Amino acid sequence: MTRYLFDNATIVTLDPEDHIYDRGQLAIEGETILSVGRAPDDFQPDERIDLGGRVVMPGLYNAHTHAAMTFARGYAEDLPLERWFNERIWRLESALTPEIVYWGTALAAVEMIRGGIVGFGDMYFHMDQVARVVEESGMRATLAWTVFGQGEEVGITVPETVDFVHHHNGAAGGRLRALFGPHSPYMCPDAFLARTAAVAYREGIGIHIHVAETPEQVKLAWDQYDMSPVELLGNRGLFETHTIVAHAIHVNEVDITTLANKQVHVVQCPSTYLRYAMGVAPVPEMLARGVNVALGTDGAGSSVALNMWREMRLAVLMQRQAHGDPTLMPGSLPLHMAAANGARALGFPQSGVLAPGNAADLIVIDTTAPHFQPLHDVIAGLVWCTEPADVRDVMVAGRWLMRDRNLLTLDEEAILSGFREALSEMLGRPLGQFRTYDVG
Amino acid sequence: MTRYLFDNATIVTLDPEDHIYDRGQLAIEGETILSVGRAPDDFQPDERIDLGGRVVMPGLYNAHTHAAMTFARGYAEDLPLERWFNERIWRLESALTPEIVYWGTALAAVEMIRGGIVGFGDMYFHMDQVARVVEESGMRATLAWTVFGQGEEVGITVPETVDFVHHHNGAAGGRLRALFGPHSPYMCPDAFLARTAAVAYREGIGIHIHVAETPEQVKLAWDQYDMSPVELLGNRGLFETHTIVAHAIHVNEVDITTLANKQVHVVQCPSTYLRYAMGVAPVPEMLARGVNVALGTDGAGSSVALNMWREMRLAVLMQRQAHGDPTLMPGSLPLHMAAANGARALGFPQSGVLAPGNAADLIVIDTTAPHFQPLHDVIAGLVWCTEPADVRDVMVAGRWLMRDRNLLTLDEEAILSGFREALSEMLGRPLGQFRTYDVG
Repeated sequence: MTRYLFDNATIVTLDPEDHIYDRGQLAIEGETILSVGRAPDDFQPDERIDLGGRVVMPGLYNAHTHAAMTFARGYAEDLPLERWFNERIWRLESALTPEIVYWGTALAAVEMIRGGIVGFGDMYFHMDQVARVVEESGMRATLAWTVFGQGEEVGITVPETVDFVHHHNGAAGGRLRALFGPHSPYMCPDAFLARTAAVAYREGIGIHIHVAETPEQVKLAWDQYDMSPVELLGNRGLFETHTIVAHAIHVNEVDITTLANKQVHVVQCPSTYLRYAMGVAPVPEMLARGVNVALGTDGAGSSVALNMWREMRLAVLMQRQAHGDPTLMPGSLPLHMAAANGARALGFPQSGVLAPGNAADLIVIDTTAPHFQPLHDVIAGLVWCTEPADVRDVMVAGRWLMRDRNLLTLDEEAILSGFREALSEMLGRPLGQFRTYDVG
Repeated sequence: MTRYLFDNATIVTLDPEDHIYDRGQLAIEGETILSVGRAPDDFQPDERIDLGGRVVMPGLYNAHTHAAMTFARGYAEDLPLERWFNERIWRLESALTPEIVYWGTALAAVEMIRGGIVGFGDMYFHMDQVARVVEESGMRATLAWTVFGQGEEVGITVPETVDFVHHHNGAAGGRLRALFGPHSPYMCPDAFLARTAAVAYREGIGIHIHVAETPEQVKLAWDQYDMSPVELLGNRGLFETHTIVAHAIHVNEVDITTLANKQVHVVQCPSTYLRYAMGVAPVPEMLARGVNVALGTDGAGSSVALNMWREMRLAVLMQRQAHGDPTLMPGSLPLHMAAANGARALGFPQSGVLAPGNAADLIVIDTTAPHFQPLHDVIAGLVWCTEPADVRDVMVAGRWLMRDRNLLTLDEEAILSGFREALSEMLGRPLGQFRTYDVG
């Protein structure tokens, strides 16, 4: 069991009171934070790390992504969403292989760790490959194998998803979690959603699902069921377990009440919403009503970058523009959304806050770089100045994933080479039709 | 005269036809680009630089900033604009010294060069100090000493501004340009604006001015002059010379026609507009009408970061959100705005495009980094993936300002230390009242 002492640290705890310790100490014992602020007098560290005033803070959670989709980065630009789906992304995905899922996710893990992300909520196909990357990388992750419930799935049958979840949930020393991934109310048959909810409730399994991304999807639900998509999910029982809904952009007051009452976790992906002009979710209202709102990058096919610093800033800016109010989403709020809210959404409540007894999941930001000077306001500096390259070190459960910008669990060169080979093989396959997005 | 050959380069010329050369050659002779695509057979370089497929592209122009204001980075967060001015920024500026202008600008130059910015349009006080930084740094810059025309100026008299301009215009081997800097129609008396315009026209001097940042400023102009602020500037003769207007957010159809007809250069600073919820300028309309629209970071007091990659992305995203149109501002447009449009606005027409005979002002982007992979679309990669830390090399007029992330003209440690000392001295001075922003 290794003991680390961070000394001379600006400790940004992101606890509910936003305690910040100036030139403080943080003691770590094994997988856990022992003390924050000042180490016990008799603490004997194996290593003392002098941060020279640099910031240590909780690691970030990318709460909704399709990590493997690095293969589609920059592949479908400047298009309306339905053309993005049908003409580009879903056509490319017709050539999907387990190999590209493994290597694409590994490439995403490199990018995420380098940017200070310690855990991710993934929803894709061939998720056994994603689980391999989680095991190897040392990251935390909550995995959902996407299914459509229309009789034809990718790499799995619907009954097998139950085995997948039980096999992976709690694996990798607790770093891995798994849940169900019905795609969305607009792609999944109604009866399938209800059956998924029943099994999830009975077996104690969570759910990760897309909802209410476009006005057309909302109209479709009203036309078919005389309910909003959020109401439909609630009515079919999908909120009776630990449920993560991605997007929930086009929601009404009743939907927000439902999300709050049912303690549904909502994930916002601002880059994608802005790039594809998908609209602005009522995030300040959700937060005011007590909904746990986390942030995610979505897949690189829509967001291009897996950069949570960018998502934090865009989450603030899009609300300020939409409401004409420069005081919206102030101070440390985006940091809390990217850390503790994400950890909670993904089922890692011992992460996302630096506090004694919590998991030693943390990142060091090199706030001595010129573009942070002068650091009048450390929170403003973190939110508005930090880029992925400013993340110096990354630790998960007391284990280093990156130190001084060197990755310690993943072989970047081997991943780049494996990725290139898998992509080239994939692009050599004939492209057919994968799914069709045809709402509205 | 040094000759460089860039080989194996992805050459993103940003010429009007958007030529891109795959694994091409770029030859440089002295201060000038000799050839693009393929070097002459008899070209004898002093140094051959193998880019291994990395991108070489024009350097960026930060066309409107107050570089010295790094001292106010993160100093005034989450406030409405008038409180930001009156309670924080203009109060802090009451303690301004020539020293903080010099060191603050030097710190800004470090950040700008590190982020691929080769030239900037600066508007501030004690501009002789800014000129020193331009001389030393090797950057290009177009400087305006801000004046209010109300009888009391900062560090200069209004008549002296003419000498300042003549002394500095064309200095530093042509890297320095200078023009007049009347603050704005809302801070400057009407007669002063007219007089400035007359002198500018007579002496062939350009103008850099703020305009139409808020609806209140527009209302004030209508109330006082029965004209929009843009009309007022035109009517008083300010568009009869090379004029740069910063912001022009709240403009109408007639204003856009005037800006187009008078070939006024408009600079947009998206970070500031979004952070302070200032509204969305009709940029697509301006561009469609032939207005030269460039981008800037504004001062770090409002934007926090001097990051042109961020400004490019935000310029796109804020328009897509405002108009609900994901096809707006597509492809390489933001790169053109940040490069050639900025160079033209600042009076450096031989810069901003990689073409034979143009100035050797360029940057190398390390597009081999994992977060660029796979580079399906090099333009999308540059716009959506690049962060300042991805800029490997910076050259201005054939001279290296940065190589392999090492600054070659500025001493970063000395600047950080000088800046800290000047800031501490400034913060030790009693804060009084500088100006009052009292429109509306």
